Amino acid sequence: MTYRAPVEEMLFVMQELAGIDAVAQLPGHEEAGYDTAAAVLEECARFNEGVVAPLNHPADQSPSSFQDGRVTTSPGFKAAFAQFAAGGWQGLQHPPQFGGQGLPKLIHSACAEMVNSASLSFALCPLLTDGAIEALLTAGSEEQQAAYIPKMIDGSWTGSMNLTEPQAGSDLSLVRTRAEPRADGSWLLFGTKVFITYGEHDLADNIVHLVLARVAGAPEGVKGISLFICPKVLADGTRNDVHCVSIEHKLGIKASPTAVLQYGDHGGAVAYLVGQENHGLEYMFVMMNAARFGVGIQGIALAERAYQQAVAYARERVQSRPADGSLSRAAPIIQHPDVRRMLMTMRAHTEGCRALA
Amino acid sequence: MTYRAPVEEMLFVMQELAGIDAVAQLPGHEEAGYDTAAAVLEECARFNEGVVAPLNHPADQSPSSFQDGRVTTSPGFKAAFAQFAAGGWQGLQHPPQFGGQGLPKLIHSACAEMVNSASLSFALCPLLTDGAIEALLTAGSEEQQAAYIPKMIDGSWTGSMNLTEPQAGSDLSLVRTRAEPRADGSWLLFGTKVFITYGEHDLADNIVHLVLARVAGAPEGVKGISLFICPKVLADGTRNDVHCVSIEHKLGIKASPTAVLQYGDHGGAVAYLVGQENHGLEYMFVMMNAARFGVGIQGIALAERAYQQAVAYARERVQSRPADGSLSRAAPIIQHPDVRRMLMTMRAHTEGCRALA
Repeated sequence: MTYRAPVEEMLFVMQELAGIDAVAQLPGHEEAGYDTAAAVLEECARFNEGVVAPLNHPADQSPSSFQDGRVTTSPGFKAAFAQFAAGGWQGLQHPPQFGGQGLPKLIHSACAEMVNSASLSFALCPLLTDGAIEALLTAGSEEQQAAYIPKMIDGSWTGSMNLTEPQAGSDLSLVRTRAEPRADGSWLLFGTKVFITYGEHDLADNIVHLVLARVAGAPEGVKGISLFICPKVLADGTRNDVHCVSIEHKLGIKASPTAVLQYGDHGGAVAYLVGQENHGLEYMFVMMNAARFGVGIQGIALAERAYQQAVAYARERVQSRPADGSLSRAAPIIQHPDVRRMLMTMRAHTEGCRALA
Repeated sequence: MTYRAPVEEMLFVMQELAGIDAVAQLPGHEEAGYDTAAAVLEECARFNEGVVAPLNHPADQSPSSFQDGRVTTSPGFKAAFAQFAAGGWQGLQHPPQFGGQGLPKLIHSACAEMVNSASLSFALCPLLTDGAIEALLTAGSEEQQAAYIPKMIDGSWTGSMNLTEPQAGSDLSLVRTRAEPRADGSWLLFGTKVFITYGEHDLADNIVHLVLARVAGAPEGVKGISLFICPKVLADGTRNDVHCVSIEHKLGIKASPTAVLQYGDHGGAVAYLVGQENHGLEYMFVMMNAARFGVGIQGIALAERAYQQAVAYARERVQSRPADGSLSRAAPIIQHPDVRRMLMTMRAHTEGCRALA
């Protein structure tokens, strides 16, 4: 089942509802009018329809796999991610000073919908990287921004988000991963993080883990949590002491590796404090909010793909005569009014949500 | 996760709402008062909690498998089905003259809920057999009833229901399987049936397929469909020309084999007309109606099992402090009022549906 990006509907929303030409009046977005949007969306559609969408179903049948601490992603993901990065899609909404395109979120949202429709499993990697970039833009030092953001934007590295521990999910006050200071100002992390999306994979040379941990003597609860950068590979090329020990066996999005990460089992994982001690949750929620918006887009993306598949099936599936007697034999079910009603309801919900996004 | 049959709740419904002692006034149900119900339900609970429920999760991980025309059911299913049959559970609601217990549907419904809660995949086999028995009780000749019903009641044979074809699902007027008359009054069937629940398996010696097919010259549409009995193994012990060519790979109820059956590829599948020609749909709907009631019971059964699992998880999962400040550390989530509210809603819906069933 192929995917056709709803470029026309997206441009309608941008032009008629969101007023993209008004957005282009804003400082820094001078180039981002209707024509730019149309050109970007056309190119994005071509990439996602042609490169990403065909990988989705085979990837579900050949999920990411784990062996000896390494994760091998589904067939074709690595090449597609290289094309994604080379096309500049990771940097679409990020600042030009770090290599991004500096386009408004409005255009990014449409592009994010497309990659999620094409393959949700694939799209999760850029989603988490976007979150890591936004967290560092908000709370990282200039040195940290310079060291990590350009590499994440050009796709040579990706980002991950490490909050949950086996005993701490919704309630992050229970986080136990601990950070010990070192003489040079860096830290060592010790602990276990679970449900880490793209916490280990083979799509990029390095992974920038953003990790919540507690410093000794920190206040109890959520006011004693700090945020750290813990790269999989350190600046000098040595492998850091953060290791994937397993990935989840899931019912869906099987191509997206969901990792259990072990920090510091072999002496401590080198990490760098982001912003101030004990303000970690505040910074992480920048990333969380980016992820939440992204999850909303996922919903629209899946609804769109489901609608397209439903229409295709309704055209193909022959069953029952039309109720109006217009045909003496069974017809494709799209000719039945109740089926059309259901399809139009799906379409109305999807377009309505897109207009709100 | 173990299953505990809600015997007390079931007996409450029978006694307080359904008036089981009034049911026991009906001719043929003299033995079916409260005490009988209580004894049957206790025994049924013991069997399903102890024998069937433990098979469910492993069976999902080791689904029924197909090789060379044969289906091997999940580990333990064969032994459990033998116990099910030996316990008389298949015949619970069926007439004593054919070896059944002759108990009212009221008691049968509670027992059906239990086996479905214990393992929906397992329970589908007796469900289809019940349907086949009811169809033959309604439309079969005395000879057919005598030949097939006792064997299905004692569990040495099972039943299946063959309506759907690749081009005919909701719209049975498109059924193409054809029946050709033979000199001895029997028929030969030719065609393909799909989505046949327990259409092939290793739980019993024989399978009584009830099959919709068209006789040459029959009126078009649903008024030209006849019902046939087509046993997998004929009375003289020869293998009939009905063969399983594959089973579906499903997202759930994986232990229940869903077969594609090929009739007559090697000369014709011997079959026997049930009732009158061209009245097949009418008879099959007896079976369909039994199946529909059974599917309603499945819903209650799954809701009950889901509720029990949710309660167990809510007792075990520790997260967040109680909102009333009664504890200074995180508590099992069952202590949070909103979680209790959700659990009680599940329970109210489940008990409400059971009261209606």
